[in-house]
Amino acid sequence: MKTRFVLINTSHPGNVGASARAMKVMGFDDLVLVAPRWANVLKREETIQRASGALDVLKNARIVATLDEALDGMAHLCATAMTPRDFGPPTRAPREHFAELFGLPDALLEEEHTLPFPLWPRPVSIAFLFGSERFGMQNDDVYRCHVALSIPTNPKFGSLNLAAAVQLIAYDWREALGGFGVQSATAEPQLADAAAVAGMLKHWEGALADIGFLDPASPKKLMPRLNQLFNRAQLSDEEIHILRGVARAMSQKAAAAPQRRGSDSAGKTRTEALAPDDR
Amino acid sequence: MKTRFVLINTSHPGNVGASARAMKVMGFDDLVLVAPRWANVLKREETIQRASGALDVLKNARIVATLDEALDGMAHLCATAMTPRDFGPPTRAPREHFAELFGLPDALLEEEHTLPFPLWPRPVSIAFLFGSERFGMQNDDVYRCHVALSIPTNPKFGSLNLAAAVQLIAYDWREALGGFGVQSATAEPQLADAAAVAGMLKHWEGALADIGFLDPASPKKLMPRLNQLFNRAQLSDEEIHILRGVARAMSQKAAAAPQRRGSDSAGKTRTEALAPDDR
Repeated sequence: MKTRFVLINTSHPGNVGASARAMKVMGFDDLVLVAPRWANVLKREETIQRASGALDVLKNARIVATLDEALDGMAHLCATAMTPRDFGPPTRAPREHFAELFGLPDALLEEEHTLPFPLWPRPVSIAFLFGSERFGMQNDDVYRCHVALSIPTNPKFGSLNLAAAVQLIAYDWREALGGFGVQSATAEPQLADAAAVAGMLKHWEGALADIGFLDPASPKKLMPRLNQLFNRAQLSDEEIHILRGVARAMSQKAAAAPQRRGSDSAGKTRTEALAPDDR
Repeated sequence: MKTRFVLINTSHPGNVGASARAMKVMGFDDLVLVAPRWANVLKREETIQRASGALDVLKNARIVATLDEALDGMAHLCATAMTPRDFGPPTRAPREHFAELFGLPDALLEEEHTLPFPLWPRPVSIAFLFGSERFGMQNDDVYRCHVALSIPTNPKFGSLNLAAAVQLIAYDWREALGGFGVQSATAEPQLADAAAVAGMLKHWEGALADIGFLDPASPKKLMPRLNQLFNRAQLSDEEIHILRGVARAMSQKAAAAPQRRGSDSAGKTRTEALAPDDR
């Protein structure tokens, strides 16, 4: 859907640059400035600096004198207003509004006149309007919009930076349009099956006895506890190999260690001290 | 839930200030900086300027030397990483991850060991980690986290500003925690009922005939079309009054107007020209 961001009477070049970047990072590129404070704002150093790599958005941006010109060809007009108006379009949270724009099956939308309450017809184009940093949107500009989007913020501190507001709206709108994918790390690990976990635990049970941590004559609930721990961890096959390697090394070291005199009782004492109790 | 934002090796004071503002606007106030480029970053002019009114967040912020110190007392660690790693915690979109943290009923969470796959136990505290502007997070810092949150961005331009990333995560997390309300404009208007709409339409039908727009002998589908239009508009009682006032004024003006000779045929011609056809 054709999407346009309209900044009205913007003062700070940094916000124009940051808005361009915020738009591009969410895949939007149609930026129109209505009577910005600086006529050369698109070419100012701070604008370009804050735009980072979104110079193409700045290059394509238009500067116009009136909101009428900025809205040319746009069907659905969304004001962004932090302060409610006495009169004007309904105030809604962006996610709620976008969900309603997209959340209904086509069949229902086409037959909207049969429904008890009319639904938003899906517009073919949408414009997001942002007012000046200091004063927000003028009432007359809000009144012509279909909706006033209000980003839910801290009731005690709703001072959202202009470019931050552009970023949030661009994000919510992109998500509503279907969203970009998240590039996952490497392939999903192959989860070990229950038999692999059980085999590893058997291996550990022996190794823990070898190093004197587990007393086979009085194992308490140590193994079931470890079983639960490893279940929660969702072990991969590779991790089973690692854990079996640890068990092997424990047993090898235990076999190589000199038999300490009184190791039986010493071992038992250590078990008492370290093993979780079985209450 | 205890929530902390941790900025690691941050270079630009402006980003620290903007991050403080982004946090506060979403109701968070626990900011920790790990080895920022400028030791006095919390007091630099650009920081304070970009923080706008979030000076209390800056005042409470801590600067520490190591990530360990920053994570003191934190249970659930979320890296933010735009570039996937060969190895490390699962990569997830923030909304997806937060939904899973909160989306499951308590009963299920308490019995997690009975489920085929373990669910995320709901942590008591959560830390969001952000790397430096230029290099992002170091691998070792990502590896210790439970999840790598990746904000879904334009595949061709994923260059999200640091403070913008803080803003988006803070927003998603606040929404996941239940969200702030949106301050609505005035009270919801009282919707007019069907009888009120029908009465108004009857009023208009007469008025439109009075002004010669509607030919009662050949009304075509004008009134059903207007009925549909006004249904879609979800008229309020107040708007019914306005529209009845318009109808009254039309009729009054028509009654006061001198009867033009041949007005019948002239009126009909105008109707033909302006009325929507009824195909």
